[in-house]
Amino acid sequence: MLNPRTIIRILSLILITEGIFMWLSIPVTLIFREHDALQFLLSGAITSGIGAIAYLPVRKSQLELNRRDGYVIVTGGWILFSLFGTLPFLLTRSIPGFTDAFFETISGFTTTGASILSNIEELSHGVLFWRSLTQWLGGMGIILLTLLILPFLGIGGMQLFSAEVPSPTPDKLHPHVKDTAKRLWLIYVVFTLGETLLLWAGEMGLFDAVCHSLTTMATGGYSTKQASIAYWNSPYIHYVITLFMFLAGTNFTLSYFAMHGQFRKIWANEEFRWYLGFIGGFAIVITLGLFFTTGGGLELAFRNALFQVVSILTTTGFVTADYLKWAPWLGVLIFILMYFGGSAGSTGGGPKIMRIVIMLKNSTQELKRMIHPNAVIPVRLNKIAVNESVVTNVLAFIAFYGIIAVISIAIMSVLGNDFDTSVGAVAATLGNIGPGIGGVGPALNYAEIHVAGKWYLSFLMLVGRLELFTVLVLFSPMFWRR
Amino acid sequence: MLNPRTIIRILSLILITEGIFMWLSIPVTLIFREHDALQFLLSGAITSGIGAIAYLPVRKSQLELNRRDGYVIVTGGWILFSLFGTLPFLLTRSIPGFTDAFFETISGFTTTGASILSNIEELSHGVLFWRSLTQWLGGMGIILLTLLILPFLGIGGMQLFSAEVPSPTPDKLHPHVKDTAKRLWLIYVVFTLGETLLLWAGEMGLFDAVCHSLTTMATGGYSTKQASIAYWNSPYIHYVITLFMFLAGTNFTLSYFAMHGQFRKIWANEEFRWYLGFIGGFAIVITLGLFFTTGGGLELAFRNALFQVVSILTTTGFVTADYLKWAPWLGVLIFILMYFGGSAGSTGGGPKIMRIVIMLKNSTQELKRMIHPNAVIPVRLNKIAVNESVVTNVLAFIAFYGIIAVISIAIMSVLGNDFDTSVGAVAATLGNIGPGIGGVGPALNYAEIHVAGKWYLSFLMLVGRLELFTVLVLFSPMFWRR
Repeated sequence: MLNPRTIIRILSLILITEGIFMWLSIPVTLIFREHDALQFLLSGAITSGIGAIAYLPVRKSQLELNRRDGYVIVTGGWILFSLFGTLPFLLTRSIPGFTDAFFETISGFTTTGASILSNIEELSHGVLFWRSLTQWLGGMGIILLTLLILPFLGIGGMQLFSAEVPSPTPDKLHPHVKDTAKRLWLIYVVFTLGETLLLWAGEMGLFDAVCHSLTTMATGGYSTKQASIAYWNSPYIHYVITLFMFLAGTNFTLSYFAMHGQFRKIWANEEFRWYLGFIGGFAIVITLGLFFTTGGGLELAFRNALFQVVSILTTTGFVTADYLKWAPWLGVLIFILMYFGGSAGSTGGGPKIMRIVIMLKNSTQELKRMIHPNAVIPVRLNKIAVNESVVTNVLAFIAFYGIIAVISIAIMSVLGNDFDTSVGAVAATLGNIGPGIGGVGPALNYAEIHVAGKWYLSFLMLVGRLELFTVLVLFSPMFWRR
Repeated sequence: MLNPRTIIRILSLILITEGIFMWLSIPVTLIFREHDALQFLLSGAITSGIGAIAYLPVRKSQLELNRRDGYVIVTGGWILFSLFGTLPFLLTRSIPGFTDAFFETISGFTTTGASILSNIEELSHGVLFWRSLTQWLGGMGIILLTLLILPFLGIGGMQLFSAEVPSPTPDKLHPHVKDTAKRLWLIYVVFTLGETLLLWAGEMGLFDAVCHSLTTMATGGYSTKQASIAYWNSPYIHYVITLFMFLAGTNFTLSYFAMHGQFRKIWANEEFRWYLGFIGGFAIVITLGLFFTTGGGLELAFRNALFQVVSILTTTGFVTADYLKWAPWLGVLIFILMYFGGSAGSTGGGPKIMRIVIMLKNSTQELKRMIHPNAVIPVRLNKIAVNESVVTNVLAFIAFYGIIAVISIAIMSVLGNDFDTSVGAVAATLGNIGPGIGGVGPALNYAEIHVAGKWYLSFLMLVGRLELFTVLVLFSPMFWRR
């Protein structure tokens, strides 16, 4: 029982918005005296125009939303955004092929950062800006999704993600939630501006500072340079970006508390402590590993270790060093980090720290249950017992993640990729990271992947970004049954 | 509140039994006129002697068993068996180093089949027989464990494994269960004899036929030849062994039904249908892959595909072809099979078909739960709703399996192994398979692994064979608390 008019109404509004954002590249092209302003004008006009045409017939229809509409709107919205988002790439001929343009665009909107470009520096400033903007918009979409839409869909376990904010009921959005959304968006904007200023104050020009800030806060990882952040041989730049990747991978509600001086609430958040612990643990081990296996001193080892750990764990995907050239075991540690993900309520992808922690805790509790089989031994988070159905949902999510990864590795290898490349490409796209291992390592890109592989990886980026279930439910026959 | 006297009494009886089995090699050495009869006499005497010395002081103590004693006895039993089982290797100097001897022995008793031997043919017949016997005894131990001990320990989900037999209560073993155990052991013996006769009727000598039958029925995979089953270039031998690997990976209760003509009960068993389906599906795809990428015709492609699929899926580990020399994607499919495992109630290791099926079913049910969040949508197996705590336990088991695999891959890579070898060695030992990928592929062995790596992999074999929880619970502080 879908409500097609409601779906069309919301999706067409989304399209109109996207077209307007495309026009933001026009001043950029004018400032840099480049010649693709017309292409951006046209891209925006087509996108907004089609949106407006679709909107008109349904503009007066009543907004009736049920759970199924929600799933269609979320998945459909991300696909539509990515389809029309290819226009600037195609019309400026920056990326001539549709497959490549779609891959690059959905990689942007899903905040993945996997690129098919082999010479990023040859793109015009307008195109580079649009490419960065896709990630920033994607990140904003994710905040909206986590905070408003997923709780509305009642996705089990998701209530944990916004534990500190009142959940909206399926009937209507609680006004308080709308306020919270506005506040978190404000934090997103303020952080983006703050990072821009700090980078600009350092060795980075204003344009690069803006673009990198847009993609950092989205944990996206698109850079304006082929060498990514390694282009800037500056500890200051590296540490500033590390800091903002860390913030982008933190639950935005906690940043809100920080701004209001409620530091005790931050420390009381168990997921945050684990987030810090995982980053600290991996960074220390890798720092020592790098220090003893490479030259350059302790500071460089620490900076490279911390940057890569934060970048991969938060699923950003910037790089300052090629971890595949490190001692093999250090590369393995980085690869394992690809299966963590950011905090719940952040823009980070992957399974998320929250789910990893619940899985780990349930495992140790299961051992206790074996010694005392008749005792009720719940998983506790923030000192509160977690509902068993939430634990089951979390375990099912992780099982799904594993099943999809395994099937995808088989598919990618059938499409002619070697074992390491298959494993790396799947981990890096499903987890919305960007760089993987093997043929899609940090010094390489996705240009060489077979066309079918690019489409399949695009699908993985979408599935990973929308918390698996949101997309996969559309493949369930029950979903389409009356 | 352990009962040390009970534990010592049972473990010492186990040792006495092991010593007696060592003497079975003496007639073998005499028949082949070899000169290590004395070493086997001595090995058996030491083992049984120490067992008897430990038994005497506790022989009159009352048998008091609780859950904790059970865990200690199972894990302790397998370790003791493996420690004393090294004696024939050490005293005959077939394997001079203790680490290697222990690795080879625990690989036997856990029915893994991972070997450090680079020239198996140079071993005496007595030693080869003992090596094969360790696996057969291990397989017998597993039947005992699955049927009697795990249900007694009340390991959640395990009740599924013996769904067709009445479960023993913690107080005392139901006499009916003892009967069932005897019947299943009888099937184990009859199958071993049957395979011996069929192999002997073919191109295999009696000694090799006996040894391979002992290790097939245990899903162990130790061969008397360095080239494993590829040594015999005989379709007949390959198909016979495929058949018995298949039977060894099937729930033994179903074989009992087959012997009594109750074929309807077999088909009613859902796990068995999935087991057939997985084998059939993978075998067909790999047959086609081999047919189109290698020469040799359809029959050879089918035989090699089916043999390798059954061998890896049932965690036996025999090989007739080096799957790492196939097209990479075929090797990836074989690698994925390493994470399946035999049926519940078989001698196969790994996560087991039953758990994989419950995980898959729960995943699709979770999607349905998202559409109808208020409906109760259970996982059904054999048309019966599975208790939610069992589903949670199964998911926790698989999560544990994944966590252990990831940590182990990190450890193996820190010990200096490359990515593929680390991944392959962990999959092949935790799953009790034997051959892996990378440096421990089917044409290679574990001789080159670092000493610490051999000890760690020995630990993994034990953890995998004893269903994870049984061993890991000993590491829980709660276990040792009064």
